[in-house]
Amino acid sequence: MILSLQKRKVREDNSLFVIEGDKLVREYILAGNRVMLMAGKPEWIDGEPEAVIGGADEVVTVNYEELRRISSLRTPHNVLAVAPMRKAQFSDDSLRGRLTPVLECVQDPGNLGTIIRIAAWFGMGNIICSPDSVDFYNPKVIQATMGAFMHVNVWYRPLEELLGSAAGDGIPVYGTTTDGESVYESDLGTEGIILFGNESKGISAGLLQHVTSRITIPGPSKPVAGLESLNVSMAAAIVCSEFFRRGSRQ
Amino acid sequence: MILSLQKRKVREDNSLFVIEGDKLVREYILAGNRVMLMAGKPEWIDGEPEAVIGGADEVVTVNYEELRRISSLRTPHNVLAVAPMRKAQFSDDSLRGRLTPVLECVQDPGNLGTIIRIAAWFGMGNIICSPDSVDFYNPKVIQATMGAFMHVNVWYRPLEELLGSAAGDGIPVYGTTTDGESVYESDLGTEGIILFGNESKGISAGLLQHVTSRITIPGPSKPVAGLESLNVSMAAAIVCSEFFRRGSRQ
Repeated sequence: MILSLQKRKVREDNSLFVIEGDKLVREYILAGNRVMLMAGKPEWIDGEPEAVIGGADEVVTVNYEELRRISSLRTPHNVLAVAPMRKAQFSDDSLRGRLTPVLECVQDPGNLGTIIRIAAWFGMGNIICSPDSVDFYNPKVIQATMGAFMHVNVWYRPLEELLGSAAGDGIPVYGTTTDGESVYESDLGTEGIILFGNESKGISAGLLQHVTSRITIPGPSKPVAGLESLNVSMAAAIVCSEFFRRGSRQ
Repeated sequence: MILSLQKRKVREDNSLFVIEGDKLVREYILAGNRVMLMAGKPEWIDGEPEAVIGGADEVVTVNYEELRRISSLRTPHNVLAVAPMRKAQFSDDSLRGRLTPVLECVQDPGNLGTIIRIAAWFGMGNIICSPDSVDFYNPKVIQATMGAFMHVNVWYRPLEELLGSAAGDGIPVYGTTTDGESVYESDLGTEGIILFGNESKGISAGLLQHVTSRITIPGPSKPVAGLESLNVSMAAAIVCSEFFRRGSRQ
């Protein structure tokens, strides 16, 4: 059962996901969340305070071999927990008065995890992904956030519709492209969508129509082999940092 | 022999390293570099122009199974090459007139690869690592640079000595810490060392003594579980971007 939660469909059918690792499980519960099941080595369970252990509906002790079998990691930690998915309500108002990273078809779990960490760091509490993006509850995404997943709501929405209605509501749509204005020189606001495209294809033509300003991270002045672009998660780090810097000066 | 080049000692004893992947091997040669050996699938070799194939001292055709055996990747590409290490001369003057990222004990190959890509993007052509950092020629580092490794010299030097002599020469040493001045508010120049610490321990006390200004990426206003710090490669992306932005406005 726990192993089957590595599949997106099983996670969604059961509204459950897996959290792995001593620090992650501990912090998740201490932040006020409950888990359904905690499976840990007896010595780890024994060493944790009641505030942690009491956050689980059910606690089972497992040995290293059993942990390895149910873990998504090659080398498991001391504990793993199964938790109900969090359900935050999305409304059109969710885009108002804040900056929201929106990801089109981001495929790599490490990239999504990193972008969640970046967003959380800069106080951006919502991320919206196209339905064909990697799943937020993928164990590799959760791991890569290093705990930041607790601080960000991630929704999956058809982006054509979302961007179309944002544009209609006068909400700016910033698109990160390779042919835009320098992000350092652009007008950046404190409300709007910051759109990032797929790892190899960038933002699709369909979505580019809704972009109200194209922004670019300046790099080599002429094309150089091996330096065609930055990885999407590095681009997100730099662009979100620049939005934050501007916002904090207002 | 090729497989043994996955070991740092063997690489160093032979001054050789491995480049994997169709695009990487092609671009490396087209950028004017020679390789000693090219091992590729016959259909790939047949499809490449003479400008690429001619860049190898020796070309051997291999099948998928053979490639898989000599590759460091789980799923090999169509080609792999063995190349002599590049030797750029380091002198104390190398620090003059430019910004140089310096890494203390960075362990993760993905982090070093990403930092190399960031440095190259912002025109920082040199990186210096402490001797206990991950090896530049580690196949995972080379892969993670996505080709940017061609554009950056990476040296390994005892940092106590390097930073001490830099400080003596009046070269600023910027240290990225969690208790410094906001990177957005700090005085940032166009010459100096930008020091990044180990993934979990940060910059050691010994090296902090040589830091002339501590810089920090502002985040949550109070400590939050799961948001203790940013990953070193994200921090490098943001900090190098900010140095670049300031420099480009002068």
